Amino acid sequence: MINIAIIGMGMIGVSLGMALRSVEPQDSYLGEITVAGYDANAVHTRESRGRLAIDREARSVEDAVRDAHIVVVATPVQAIRDVFAQLAAHLPSGVIVTDVSSTKAQVVAWAAELLPPGVDFVGGHPMAGKEQSGPKSADPQLFKEAIYCLTAAANIRQESIDAIHALVKTIGAKPYYIDPVEHDAYVAGISHLPFLLSAALVEVTSRSPAWTEMAPLAASGFRDLSRLASGDPVMHRDICLTNRQGLIRWIDETITLLQHIRTDLEQGDRERIDEFFRHAKAARDEWLESRLQMRPGEADFEHVPQVERPRLFGFRKPSDRDSKRRS
Amino acid sequence: MINIAIIGMGMIGVSLGMALRSVEPQDSYLGEITVAGYDANAVHTRESRGRLAIDREARSVEDAVRDAHIVVVATPVQAIRDVFAQLAAHLPSGVIVTDVSSTKAQVVAWAAELLPPGVDFVGGHPMAGKEQSGPKSADPQLFKEAIYCLTAAANIRQESIDAIHALVKTIGAKPYYIDPVEHDAYVAGISHLPFLLSAALVEVTSRSPAWTEMAPLAASGFRDLSRLASGDPVMHRDICLTNRQGLIRWIDETITLLQHIRTDLEQGDRERIDEFFRHAKAARDEWLESRLQMRPGEADFEHVPQVERPRLFGFRKPSDRDSKRRS
Repeated sequence: MINIAIIGMGMIGVSLGMALRSVEPQDSYLGEITVAGYDANAVHTRESRGRLAIDREARSVEDAVRDAHIVVVATPVQAIRDVFAQLAAHLPSGVIVTDVSSTKAQVVAWAAELLPPGVDFVGGHPMAGKEQSGPKSADPQLFKEAIYCLTAAANIRQESIDAIHALVKTIGAKPYYIDPVEHDAYVAGISHLPFLLSAALVEVTSRSPAWTEMAPLAASGFRDLSRLASGDPVMHRDICLTNRQGLIRWIDETITLLQHIRTDLEQGDRERIDEFFRHAKAARDEWLESRLQMRPGEADFEHVPQVERPRLFGFRKPSDRDSKRRS
Repeated sequence: MINIAIIGMGMIGVSLGMALRSVEPQDSYLGEITVAGYDANAVHTRESRGRLAIDREARSVEDAVRDAHIVVVATPVQAIRDVFAQLAAHLPSGVIVTDVSSTKAQVVAWAAELLPPGVDFVGGHPMAGKEQSGPKSADPQLFKEAIYCLTAAANIRQESIDAIHALVKTIGAKPYYIDPVEHDAYVAGISHLPFLLSAALVEVTSRSPAWTEMAPLAASGFRDLSRLASGDPVMHRDICLTNRQGLIRWIDETITLLQHIRTDLEQGDRERIDEFFRHAKAARDEWLESRLQMRPGEADFEHVPQVERPRLFGFRKPSDRDSKRRS
């Protein structure tokens, strides 16, 4: 039996619990699983029980990680430092800690600073989300086929990496190993810039004195482009603040590009505007096409070694322990 | 019998033909309808016949508008000037011309310049679209519940407005009367700025040397924000060029906003970033909520007079004519 503690029962934490608990034992790369959950907001913890995301409602961080083999910190990224500090005194030796937050370099640094020796940290970031937050929005299918970024320092035991790899496979996602700094630079462009632009679109249009007249005309294009603006503002703020340098670089690139397009429009430069839209379309279509090929079993996502069962470092199954005691 | 000629059998033109021809006669505000179609690309005209969008394949613009009561110009906006010039010599007196393009001021000016006296122009713009183009992407349901902007000069006969109003109601869309210059300023913000930002997002990320590594990590947020970038580049180019002033204003607003956000990020100004995301979320959620209320029968879209059957100016139904001849 593998005991998993989830700290933070928001949309991702509850989705993870539901995904883990709904998997058939024979399909679990971790074998049998129990999930304990804790959220500073007791209502969230209770709701996550109602949604079958956890076996046990913990009353505190300490209570949640008691007997845990794997601890998943699923709080907003800005809360992680505090959670690590709280965890430090209570983590069983040999436990593996992971997170699910959208930036990695800062979290890896906090882990190195705060988690005790003997505790391995493997950073995680599922490339899946929705704009709604909270336990009610959770979905056990959220991670199916999603890329799940994993990042581990050089001194981490292979067994710990294998365990988190197995957890990711168990919920139907695809492990993707990446350096934390690279990860942050990349997601700033393909994930954080999109929600910044989405919010910027809503902001410039809705601040206009003509917004009342414009709003009824806005159709599916506006709906899709503005979708990410409906995401949790606190989460967006924290992600942007923990990934400032990466994001600023992309904002600069975007401003420069918009200035060029502005000039082209002012000069009525058909060819350059044409070239801009053509290139963007080709790149987007190619990306979409490449995604279609990203199915399980495809070489792209199978360059990481297959792990059938993790050899969970330092863990003995309760049955092993019992049989030893009896003998 | 009302004869409708559609010039330009792209995604919108074919969708319109399919919508008109699939409506039951008792649900048609125009009574019985026949549709003739013409496209400079004969393959498109043939495909539109295959998709049941037209009753008759026209061999030329002249052939298409023979006997027409209503002419719908559904070509890309930059082609409209030429089409108007071609039409001028062939339009029956009393015919009503409309278009479906995304900008209105320029098209209204071309109509005033080129269409002969006795021909009324009522500009149209259905607020519905998809990123795919061509007859194969056509969908008779495209206009259902969509706002359909209509713009008419002061000297247009009420009967002509009523006829286009009836056409819009027949395809299930909601007529929305608006001044052409206002229309262009508004759609620049809620329609053209979104596809510019979508293309800009794809452009800055895909031009990055790291794109190959980044692309596999891009998930549903990137997919939605980049959707409009897959639209027809020629259409996007032409829309941007015919609505330059409106669009440039919104680009400037966006650049200014991005510069402010950049400063806030650099200074780590939690409160201002928080305020930005909170306001954008509130505005977007409110917009979405107001859309839910925009159902047929709701007051918002029923401030325009209901027209049960248009009194098509100068048209007599064939049955009237026949009966008169007989008498």
